[in-house]
Amino acid sequence: MPFEQLEGFITPTKSFYVRTHFPIPKIDKVQWRLRIEGVVEKPFEIDYDALLKIESKIIPATLECAGNNRSFLETKVKGVQWGLGAVGNAEWTGVQLSALLDRAGLKSSALEIILEGADSGRLEDPKSPRGAINFARSIPLEKARDVLLAYKMNDAELPPEHGFPVRAIVPGWFAVASIKWLQRVIVTDKPFNGYYQTLDYAYWKRAGDTAQLTALSELQVKAEIARPGAGEIVSANSNVRVHGAAWTGNGEIVKVEISTDKGSTWKEARLGGDSRPNAWRLWEFDWRTPAKPGQVTLLARATDSSGQTQPVDRDPDRGTYMINHLLPIEVEVR
Amino acid sequence: MPFEQLEGFITPTKSFYVRTHFPIPKIDKVQWRLRIEGVVEKPFEIDYDALLKIESKIIPATLECAGNNRSFLETKVKGVQWGLGAVGNAEWTGVQLSALLDRAGLKSSALEIILEGADSGRLEDPKSPRGAINFARSIPLEKARDVLLAYKMNDAELPPEHGFPVRAIVPGWFAVASIKWLQRVIVTDKPFNGYYQTLDYAYWKRAGDTAQLTALSELQVKAEIARPGAGEIVSANSNVRVHGAAWTGNGEIVKVEISTDKGSTWKEARLGGDSRPNAWRLWEFDWRTPAKPGQVTLLARATDSSGQTQPVDRDPDRGTYMINHLLPIEVEVR
Repeated sequence: MPFEQLEGFITPTKSFYVRTHFPIPKIDKVQWRLRIEGVVEKPFEIDYDALLKIESKIIPATLECAGNNRSFLETKVKGVQWGLGAVGNAEWTGVQLSALLDRAGLKSSALEIILEGADSGRLEDPKSPRGAINFARSIPLEKARDVLLAYKMNDAELPPEHGFPVRAIVPGWFAVASIKWLQRVIVTDKPFNGYYQTLDYAYWKRAGDTAQLTALSELQVKAEIARPGAGEIVSANSNVRVHGAAWTGNGEIVKVEISTDKGSTWKEARLGGDSRPNAWRLWEFDWRTPAKPGQVTLLARATDSSGQTQPVDRDPDRGTYMINHLLPIEVEVR
Repeated sequence: MPFEQLEGFITPTKSFYVRTHFPIPKIDKVQWRLRIEGVVEKPFEIDYDALLKIESKIIPATLECAGNNRSFLETKVKGVQWGLGAVGNAEWTGVQLSALLDRAGLKSSALEIILEGADSGRLEDPKSPRGAINFARSIPLEKARDVLLAYKMNDAELPPEHGFPVRAIVPGWFAVASIKWLQRVIVTDKPFNGYYQTLDYAYWKRAGDTAQLTALSELQVKAEIARPGAGEIVSANSNVRVHGAAWTGNGEIVKVEISTDKGSTWKEARLGGDSRPNAWRLWEFDWRTPAKPGQVTLLARATDSSGQTQPVDRDPDRGTYMINHLLPIEVEVR
């Protein structure tokens, strides 16, 4: 998604970013089954029609790739060089995961829920497992009640690249957890250490002289500027609308501020619409451009209700992910 | 240790293999303290003299580097190209870890014990934590009762390269867990995911279409041939003593067999001495060499009381560690 095109609260499906790790599986929805298994009383399978008969729920949720903004890192790192656009906000229709877990009956030893997609393949990384693996991710039991098993995106059937027929939506978490082409829900009594939450999509959480490999989870508070875009030319001594979106995985966005002097001073932007849990919030700011032509660096800084705000500098223990330091947008005043 | 020099049950300290990851810390035993902390009722520190006053225990234990035999892998992999000698068996004198844990009083939430060394540094691996870390490893609570905090090796003060003044001995596990230069014992209520049990010293445990990153733990059943050594010349039509050692992390060695025909037929070797838990067992075999000169491949195969034996082929999900497939020794009959 070219983030300059941000217009409304909902990102149209056709411009919603797509990130996959294996070829998109071709799934016939008549053949498709979802299996609920593991440490449950009654494992079972459900088909597409039966899933659609369960009470549904519609939620907006912002999905962001954990590598979004990677092109802003000063030391170039491996991975897709995402700019601002590996994020989008859609309306998802589906069934709550907890309805299926209740039907299966969790045993008291249940600790995590593994979500497994039908997408699979072999990896190049010499430290990866040698055989084929399926894409899979786990979430702790207490997060499971937030999870939606979505079969519609923006009120239409899920497109193949977004996980047809059914994908998980784990609101407030990096999108890697929102498993597409869902085929199995495995309840487990031990922490899951799959490839996509250890050797990939993980970071180092430091405490004193130890650092622990930790699966990426909650979105980090962040504001992105849609317009003006990087390199855009604006007129001197005029009124320019600076606008964008902001989101967080911890509570809600309470403030977005703009700096035009590299962070020396900040002015508050206006938040648009209502605050919706796990969805981004649009914001705008009336900028009076300077009288003198030249380069100006725009910075946006979001703060959330948990008190978190964006750091000035990059934390290197986060590797190539969780990029939420201040992202400079250079514009030219003429 | 040149494994051809294997003579007795105990490996002399001067020929015991050494593997370190950071520079050897210089520790003054008068200054040294061991701290017991984490989810305990009464965290405390103990000094060297006080530790030596606690009732001691002497155990033989075989330490093997998880990368031992790496030079036998057909596809060359990263890491020290160990032959047969990254293993040794010593007598360790020390205090049981459980004595200190009992004094601190474990809280009911205790799950794992982190053993931390004084050795520290920064790593080259771009996926590693960026700042300095200390060498550390965790063991599950139920393994803690086997652990010895050793201050003597083969009845003499620990040499600096073997962990002076105190190292952990985790019997039956790969030696990476036997932390040298021990400075902290941290009781934790969450699984520990430090660098040396995730990005390093871990393997993929596969179940169906998932594979989980798993810290190396128990030694794998293995026999090594000391003599004849690789490339050694033996006389045709004569009696040659084939001998070596065998060990396992699961129970005890019950059988060692020898093949001189690439595994088509096997003959049992004699086990020497008594079986001692977590220590290797010496074995020998009287080989009548063929009348005709030529190359002969010797293979040794150990079986343990848990029924495990050595696989013919290498499991690639084990990466560069846990090498216990059959190790061919080529000799020349003249």
